[in-house]
Amino acid sequence: MNYVIWFTGLSGSGKSTIAEKLYHFLKDKGEKVEYLDGDIIRDTFPKTGFDKNSRVEHIKRIGFIASLLEKHGITVICSFISPYKNSRDYVRKICKNYKEIYISTPIEHCEKRDIKGLYKKARNKEIKNFTGISDPYQKPENPELTIDTSKESVEVSLGKVIKFLKL
Amino acid sequence: MNYVIWFTGLSGSGKSTIAEKLYHFLKDKGEKVEYLDGDIIRDTFPKTGFDKNSRVEHIKRIGFIASLLEKHGITVICSFISPYKNSRDYVRKICKNYKEIYISTPIEHCEKRDIKGLYKKARNKEIKNFTGISDPYQKPENPELTIDTSKESVEVSLGKVIKFLKL
Repeated sequence: MNYVIWFTGLSGSGKSTIAEKLYHFLKDKGEKVEYLDGDIIRDTFPKTGFDKNSRVEHIKRIGFIASLLEKHGITVICSFISPYKNSRDYVRKICKNYKEIYISTPIEHCEKRDIKGLYKKARNKEIKNFTGISDPYQKPENPELTIDTSKESVEVSLGKVIKFLKL
Repeated sequence: MNYVIWFTGLSGSGKSTIAEKLYHFLKDKGEKVEYLDGDIIRDTFPKTGFDKNSRVEHIKRIGFIASLLEKHGITVICSFISPYKNSRDYVRKICKNYKEIYISTPIEHCEKRDIKGLYKKARNKEIKNFTGISDPYQKPENPELTIDTSKESVEVSLGKVIKFLKL
């Protein structure tokens, strides 16, 4: 069975790290798999803005792509902050086997890592509408799986996803 | 071999009629095929506006979807007015086997048909930025195939596409 595996969480929460490893795990197994990540597709497929409506529409578009690929038997791994519940629920609705994985790493931990230096810029107000600082993140209420990367290694997190989805 | 088969032409030119028939032809043959049409995906995947930039970005997004599906061995049939050369060229660039089919049906003929009543509204200025009336259509310079549906039946046009692409 193929899935749409949707990673949601704050910037720096570790979602893309796990998602990428999961992609390579499935690819190496010979599965039909695609990886969609905000950072990767930004050039071709940019958000049209950072206000709530633009963010929601952006996730709807990504969800549409995921559902198309899923329909053709491809497992789609998506890694997007996707801060709004209604946009994630929309994707769940249009996909057959949507699995939401909430990377719940606390913001203090994400900000401490600050791999891309974005939190610093958001605190200095060089970046506006930054999720968790100046823009909301609506926590998933019923995700299929929750992972906190501040408490375990990437390998342990990856193992949990693989085991949970029986991949 | 799988393709991205891109139908471009004015509203009412007959592109979607041929594209749909081609989709069913391939589907019935058991091919892996997807159909993307402006009218169909409008709800999930709307243009963000009708100005030049919005139109170009919209086609870039569609092209990205087509290239993803193509990568996974699926033939993608696209039917979009896609009035700007640079956006079509962008799709050509990111796809491996892009085949542009220009439906060259003259505007007088499209307007005479006016199946959706859009030309009338455009003439009455009820619709703004209408391609061919109040917005430009840049004719393809080197399409793989050109078809004028004012001169032949749908079946003849379809046959030309099938023969040309050796489908």
